[in-house]
Amino acid sequence: MIIRYERNGKVKHGWMVEAENKVRVIEGDIYKVKAAKPIMTGLELPLDEIVLKSPCTPSKVVGIGLNYRDRAEEMGIQPPAEPAIAVKPSAAPAGPGEPIVFPGRPHSLHFEGGLAVVIKKEARHITAEEADEYILGFTCAVEVAGGERQHDGQQTESGEADSFCALGPAIAAKLDYEDLRIVTRVNGEVRQDSSTRQMIFPIPRLLEAVSSVMTLLPGDVILTGTPAGAGELHPGDEISVTVEGIGTLTTRVTAGKA
Amino acid sequence: MIIRYERNGKVKHGWMVEAENKVRVIEGDIYKVKAAKPIMTGLELPLDEIVLKSPCTPSKVVGIGLNYRDRAEEMGIQPPAEPAIAVKPSAAPAGPGEPIVFPGRPHSLHFEGGLAVVIKKEARHITAEEADEYILGFTCAVEVAGGERQHDGQQTESGEADSFCALGPAIAAKLDYEDLRIVTRVNGEVRQDSSTRQMIFPIPRLLEAVSSVMTLLPGDVILTGTPAGAGELHPGDEISVTVEGIGTLTTRVTAGKA
Repeated sequence: MIIRYERNGKVKHGWMVEAENKVRVIEGDIYKVKAAKPIMTGLELPLDEIVLKSPCTPSKVVGIGLNYRDRAEEMGIQPPAEPAIAVKPSAAPAGPGEPIVFPGRPHSLHFEGGLAVVIKKEARHITAEEADEYILGFTCAVEVAGGERQHDGQQTESGEADSFCALGPAIAAKLDYEDLRIVTRVNGEVRQDSSTRQMIFPIPRLLEAVSSVMTLLPGDVILTGTPAGAGELHPGDEISVTVEGIGTLTTRVTAGKA
Repeated sequence: MIIRYERNGKVKHGWMVEAENKVRVIEGDIYKVKAAKPIMTGLELPLDEIVLKSPCTPSKVVGIGLNYRDRAEEMGIQPPAEPAIAVKPSAAPAGPGEPIVFPGRPHSLHFEGGLAVVIKKEARHITAEEADEYILGFTCAVEVAGGERQHDGQQTESGEADSFCALGPAIAAKLDYEDLRIVTRVNGEVRQDSSTRQMIFPIPRLLEAVSSVMTLLPGDVILTGTPAGAGELHPGDEISVTVEGIGTLTTRVTAGKA
């Protein structure tokens, strides 16, 4: 699986071989690879010598509002007729080793565990049938949602803050994404336990919908929604998301200036 | 004033001298200039040989929800206690010569004329007092807002689409922005006629608030809100925004694939 790591102040992409506790250094651009695996330089590093960063550096992170049937049932609302889209900027991603930082005064915000899609190449007006060829792979995400929207559509807290989208630990390039278990734990307690089977709009349909309104660029991330159980998160909490076939992303929440 | 233009397939920054109907070609990076004016190459071009593009290429466009007192009065709602922030991605800006394209089926969306701030250098956790030194200048904006938010906070139409933020025609570097007249016309009819004096949160306060949650980068744009009179826009409409001290941005609305 593809990772992005820092070592001696330099950030590079690598191929994680967990069974051997090591990373193979990747040669060149991970988005321009035609084969199933990127090209390796031949260099290998022990896993404990690197710091995991967000596995990609998106120009934007596209969030999908409500996309799990079990979440809609829990909230007592009708599933939307079309995917609802929101955008987080390029500074939103945080890596597994970087905290989610709540800005300003102490408060709680909502976590949303989920599966993230990483875009492989520029996509505009693509169809659901073409979607798979525009996908580099999949990773785990902890999204921090903004506060409640008021009657006038204004938000009480911004969901677009730096670090409000933890991504990682790695990008799984090949994944049969139609029925993957997703488990979110806060301070060790299971809060979400569902499957991508619960998605209202399947992933190819999301790519079609998003690319029909905006240009997707290599490395861009689409957050595919969150299952039932999403809830409050506070400074000091540890949160982890495990997606079957990818692994576990664990991160912490802090408060104050990032 | 700083413009960005295309000529013979190449895109560059220039200094518009309207009185002489010409453009002086700018040397180097407009964000790294210390003096009041950028450095010129000495080359000049007639205005009719160039096509005006969006005057900057932001990594993101930050929208401020409700920021004009006359707009709040018109909507019959209380001014917010804090600026409400939303983000449009890097493909949102359109230049004066490029249409605003409504994706998908025919429908109406809302226009919002306003004053846009262009960021000069990276800003994070800056104070209102420091704000001016982080501003490269000001330009006119036509923002297309998303559809109505429903009870669940979902949007019926995305405001984040490509071309949903027309910017231009030029960046005015020095501008006393506290009482500038703003006039928006749709098909020649005046629809908004107000002043930046009506802003609920003044520009330095907006930079403080936005930079307290996210990192601003050179070229990023903050849309400072829209006055009373914002309303429906349809394919086929021509819309213009005039901001005192900057000029007039005129653009058209089309429908279909961009």
